Amino acid sequence: MVAASMALALPLSAQEAEAPPPSPNQIVESAAADEWIAIPAEDLLVMTLAPAADGSDRQVVIQLMSAPFSQGWTQNIRTLARARWYDGITVNRVQDNYVVQWGDPGHDNPESGETETKPLPEGLNVMEESDYTFAHAARTDLDTALPALLRRFPALLEERTELGQMTAEQFAERVRGGLNGDPYAEHTRNLSGWPVGISYAEGLAWPVHCYGMVGVGRSYSPDTGSGAELYTVIGHAPRHLDRNIALVGRIISGMEHLSSLPRGSGALGFYTEDEADLRTPIASIRVAADLPQDERPAFEYLTTEGETFARYAEARANRRDPFFIVPAGGADICNIPVPVREADGE
Amino acid sequence: MVAASMALALPLSAQEAEAPPPSPNQIVESAAADEWIAIPAEDLLVMTLAPAADGSDRQVVIQLMSAPFSQGWTQNIRTLARARWYDGITVNRVQDNYVVQWGDPGHDNPESGETETKPLPEGLNVMEESDYTFAHAARTDLDTALPALLRRFPALLEERTELGQMTAEQFAERVRGGLNGDPYAEHTRNLSGWPVGISYAEGLAWPVHCYGMVGVGRSYSPDTGSGAELYTVIGHAPRHLDRNIALVGRIISGMEHLSSLPRGSGALGFYTEDEADLRTPIASIRVAADLPQDERPAFEYLTTEGETFARYAEARANRRDPFFIVPAGGADICNIPVPVREADGE
Repeated sequence: MVAASMALALPLSAQEAEAPPPSPNQIVESAAADEWIAIPAEDLLVMTLAPAADGSDRQVVIQLMSAPFSQGWTQNIRTLARARWYDGITVNRVQDNYVVQWGDPGHDNPESGETETKPLPEGLNVMEESDYTFAHAARTDLDTALPALLRRFPALLEERTELGQMTAEQFAERVRGGLNGDPYAEHTRNLSGWPVGISYAEGLAWPVHCYGMVGVGRSYSPDTGSGAELYTVIGHAPRHLDRNIALVGRIISGMEHLSSLPRGSGALGFYTEDEADLRTPIASIRVAADLPQDERPAFEYLTTEGETFARYAEARANRRDPFFIVPAGGADICNIPVPVREADGE
Repeated sequence: MVAASMALALPLSAQEAEAPPPSPNQIVESAAADEWIAIPAEDLLVMTLAPAADGSDRQVVIQLMSAPFSQGWTQNIRTLARARWYDGITVNRVQDNYVVQWGDPGHDNPESGETETKPLPEGLNVMEESDYTFAHAARTDLDTALPALLRRFPALLEERTELGQMTAEQFAERVRGGLNGDPYAEHTRNLSGWPVGISYAEGLAWPVHCYGMVGVGRSYSPDTGSGAELYTVIGHAPRHLDRNIALVGRIISGMEHLSSLPRGSGALGFYTEDEADLRTPIASIRVAADLPQDERPAFEYLTTEGETFARYAEARANRRDPFFIVPAGGADICNIPVPVREADGE
C-alpha cells in the first residue's frame, strides 16, 4: 500500500523502488511448466454458434468434468454430440444475473398442430439424485486449510490459547463441525481442478455453481435431466442450485458469446414467441477428440494441488497488488477461479 | 420436497394437495403496502444510452445511496449530472464477469496532437479513503442473526450444551469474534436497504460489491475518485473491492442494456482503438427530481428491517419451493438482493 502511493508520488528509479507484491495473475504466470495439466480432447466440447450479426464466428469451448464428477451426464453429452443431436438447437433462455440455457426449441407439427421435440438418441444414462454428489471422506484438505482459517478467526484462536483447553486437533474438529466461512457448505476448495463443496459429516462432495459453470437442465424431482438441455451461469454464483442439479463442466473460451446475448423478456428469461428471432442457433457441438487434429482446440489448467495454486489462492484472498488498500483476508470459492489457458501445442 | 414429487406423480385435486411452501418472490408479493419505501426522486438517476442498433430506447435507472452511505460521492454525482457533464460520455470498458465502466473517453486536440479530457465542474468534494466505511457499532443486528447462526453451526451449539460452560451471551460474543459464514467480513446483512459488511471489532460498516452495484472508478491510492467515472458489477460479486473503492448505488432498471454489451478485447476489458465504434454513447444522465413530473420514474424497495424481508431472506437461504430438493441452509449477502419494484404512482 505504501509502496503503491509512493510510486505515484515519487518517480523512483527501478533500483530504488521496492517491487510491488505480485498479483494473482503474476503468480500464475510464474508456475512451472509441469504444474499445467493438459485437458484431454475427450473432455473438450466445441460449440459453434451461428455467426454474429456482423458475420464474425462465434465459438465456445466447454471443458467437461473428469471423474469422479457427474460422469453419467458427461457420457450422455458425448453421446448426444456424437449423434449430432445438438446441431440446430438454439439458445432459448437468457436470464440476467442467472443463466443462459440452450436446448431443443421444439418444432410445429403441421398435421397435429402440436409442438414436438426431437427424439433423443438411444443409450442415455438415467441418473439418480444421489449422483449430484460423490463420496469424499478425506480430511487432509481441511488440515491444509487450517492455517488460513486460524488467521481468519483470530478470536477463536485466542480463546483456544487462553482457555488452554483445546489442542490444534480439537480446534480442527470444531472447524470440521461447521466453521468455514462459506454459507453453503461445511467446507469449500478447488479439488482436481474443480470448485467443490464438502460435507465431512456426510462424507460427500459436489461441484458448485460458479460463473461459467455448465449444468444440466431438468424438470421437477425426481427428474435429473439427460444432458440434452444445458445452461451456463452468467451472474453471481447461484449456489442454492448446488446439490440440486448436475454440473458437468465450465466454459473455458468464448464465454462472451453467451454472456452478452440479449436477455429474454419472458418468465425466467425465456424468449417469448415475439422474440423467437433472438434465439441464437447452435450450428454444432462436437467432442474435440472427433475433430481433425488441426481443428482441435488445446487447453491446460493449473493443478489445484500444487504450490503455485496455493499461492495464487492466498493472493486472491489477500490482494496486495498496488491498486488495493485493504486486503479482504478471505475469498469465496467462486472468486478463486481455476486458471485455464490455451496450450501452445508444444 | 416430498410434496413436490408427489404433486408430479399423483394429480391431486386442489383440495387434497398441500400447498407448496411459498417461494421467496411469493413472500415478497405478500408484503403489506407499508413495508414498501418510496425512493426519493433526488436519489434516482436516469441514464439514457444512445438507441440500440434496432432503434429501440435504452434507459437505465440508478438508485443512489442515502445517508450514511458514500454521501460525498453521491453529492458529486448530482453535481456532475446537473452540470450535464455526463452527457456525451461513453461506455469504455466491458470486462466479462467483472464490470461495465463509463466515463470520458477523451478527445483529440488537433493543435497539440494530445488526447484531452473534459474539465470537471467546480464544487466537487474530495473524499478520504476513510469515507469508504462508516461508523456502525450497533450489535443488535447480530442478535437478530444469532438464531440463524445457531442453526448453521450445530456442532458449536452442541459443544456449548455439552460443556455447559457457555451461555448464549458467551456464544454471541464468540460469534462476534469472527464466526460468520462470510469470507470477507465479520458479519454481513442488508441494512437500510443496502447490502453491507460489518466489523464489530472496528465499529465500522461498508456497502459491498454485489451484482448491479454502482461504484466510483479511481486511480491509485490515495485517489478516491470524484464520481465522473462510474462502473457497475456484471458478474460474480468482486467482494475484494469492498473497502477499497466507493460504492454509490445500484442499477434498479435497465441492467440488461449494460450487462449484454459486447466485451472489450483490450486489457481489463477496455475497448481497443480498433473497437472505438463499440463504445456506447451516453446521451444523458439526469437526477429524476429535475425531470418533468410525467417523465420521472418511480420506484420503491422492500424495507430490510421488516418481517417480510426476514422471511424472504430466510427463504432465499432455505429454498423449499418445488424445484429444490436440498435447501442450502445459508445464502451469501449478494444472493439476498433487496426487492425493488416500480411504484404505481398511487
